[in-house]
Amino acid sequence: MSDTGSTTGETTTPAPTTITVIGLGNLGQVLARTFLDQGHQVTVWNRSQDKADELVARGATLAASPAEAVAASDLIVVCVLDYTTVRDLLTPTAAALAGRVVVNLTSGTPDPARELGAWVGKQGAAYVDGAVYAIPQTVGTPEAFVLYSGDAEAFARYRTLLETLGSAVFVGTDAGLAPVYDVAVLSGMYGMFAGFFQTVAVGGSAGIEAAKVTELLVRWLTEAIAALPGFAAEIDAGDYRTETSNLDINAVGLAHILAATKEQGVGVDLLAPLHALFERQVSQGHGAESMSRAIESLR
Amino acid sequence: MSDTGSTTGETTTPAPTTITVIGLGNLGQVLARTFLDQGHQVTVWNRSQDKADELVARGATLAASPAEAVAASDLIVVCVLDYTTVRDLLTPTAAALAGRVVVNLTSGTPDPARELGAWVGKQGAAYVDGAVYAIPQTVGTPEAFVLYSGDAEAFARYRTLLETLGSAVFVGTDAGLAPVYDVAVLSGMYGMFAGFFQTVAVGGSAGIEAAKVTELLVRWLTEAIAALPGFAAEIDAGDYRTETSNLDINAVGLAHILAATKEQGVGVDLLAPLHALFERQVSQGHGAESMSRAIESLR
Repeated sequence: MSDTGSTTGETTTPAPTTITVIGLGNLGQVLARTFLDQGHQVTVWNRSQDKADELVARGATLAASPAEAVAASDLIVVCVLDYTTVRDLLTPTAAALAGRVVVNLTSGTPDPARELGAWVGKQGAAYVDGAVYAIPQTVGTPEAFVLYSGDAEAFARYRTLLETLGSAVFVGTDAGLAPVYDVAVLSGMYGMFAGFFQTVAVGGSAGIEAAKVTELLVRWLTEAIAALPGFAAEIDAGDYRTETSNLDINAVGLAHILAATKEQGVGVDLLAPLHALFERQVSQGHGAESMSRAIESLR
Repeated sequence: MSDTGSTTGETTTPAPTTITVIGLGNLGQVLARTFLDQGHQVTVWNRSQDKADELVARGATLAASPAEAVAASDLIVVCVLDYTTVRDLLTPTAAALAGRVVVNLTSGTPDPARELGAWVGKQGAAYVDGAVYAIPQTVGTPEAFVLYSGDAEAFARYRTLLETLGSAVFVGTDAGLAPVYDVAVLSGMYGMFAGFFQTVAVGGSAGIEAAKVTELLVRWLTEAIAALPGFAAEIDAGDYRTETSNLDINAVGLAHILAATKEQGVGVDLLAPLHALFERQVSQGHGAESMSRAIESLR
């Protein structure tokens, strides 16, 4: 992503690096294994120790406590359930943090990320927040990408190393930015999932297998996604003039869809709010403008 | 799409064919032009005649009335605003319909399609309903596809000709089936659009340009779409066991997202209903099962 984020300067990775991975869920396991495969000196810690067995067999060192884990490495990668857990784990390690870099890949939201970043900073360590876009199978492949925000210098220092997890995108020095992007992008994903459920429910009401209707949905979504950057450009420009698919057409079209969905005996809770958004814009006199103008009802 | 629909038998197209296109909106224009380019004898009709000017210059015949338009050709392609309009246009042509094939590409819903199909049948004509998945730029290209349902023999007769509009997928002899698929697939598309608006609104609340956050959304959706066939398979099998992303995780994750969205001052109307769906399944004891089980709350 060439146009996002700050210049990160030189990207040198001391190799081998000492890396600690705290949290050995699906993602943490893959991270630790990837680092081991590259010849780095990896220390791991997990609440239930058995998760570390395979990694130890591959050469990782199992730390007896989070404090021992932190003391073992220059780079501390944390990937646990939530930010409260991160804080609970790191608090007893405070004395050992100074001079290290904490990269927190735990899923979270902006405010807790900023608070955690500030606390880590107070201990004399650098904080980088990350949001991982990968399924375990794609970690370490070009399909995976990770958004980072926070300490730019620390990010630059470990950029090459972090790139092995997937392409690294630095979105800004505010530690809360990666989580903002994360909340935004995951919201979009859940919208797509909501649409998928609606698709399958309507198809199922006519006896159509989920696999069949999903095959067509996937085909159409793959094409329809291409419309999103155009909508985004309209929104950024605040210029909603259109020759093609305006709000009137979409409001009427979606109303027909909702009516037909009800006739099929399927609920419309998931999509009715979008229709309300369209209607609000139409009732304000914007029916001839682009569907993208619905965003104005959201902010 | 190899596994959908009936066998269509021989696909012979008499060339050149006499084709009438009724309705010259964006799509109708492209259809008529595509047929003309292939050397067919094309008759057109539109409520406002000026839409036909360019087509007439290219060799199309402008009919003075829908009845004259119907009488001119073996194949009648209709592409107007809605089914009421189709019915209003065709009613005065009833006497001329016998022996012809009506392919109705007007967007619509299942019940009106069945009623229209029955009425056309009573006039001694064959009815095929179609749902077009294309933007005007992709009509006639491999990206476009059209779902058809209704008279299988009539579809088979014109299949090769119809394939020039995009790949033709016959989904069944019930005329209402193409509209069912259409309602289902467009519901999925609108779900994705709802997610997109949410993405842009959350990003915008932190000063992130729509283009920037949309670039990442597109990247992630392109990958996340690949999960849908797996969910569909779980739904078809009714087997929701999973090792990865279960309902508990998604319910908690989405709750965090909604909370963070509110903290950013953005409404959550578009996604709250999906969370309610997750919660209903969790409260029924299915938290450890796949997210795809949310479908059970919809039907």
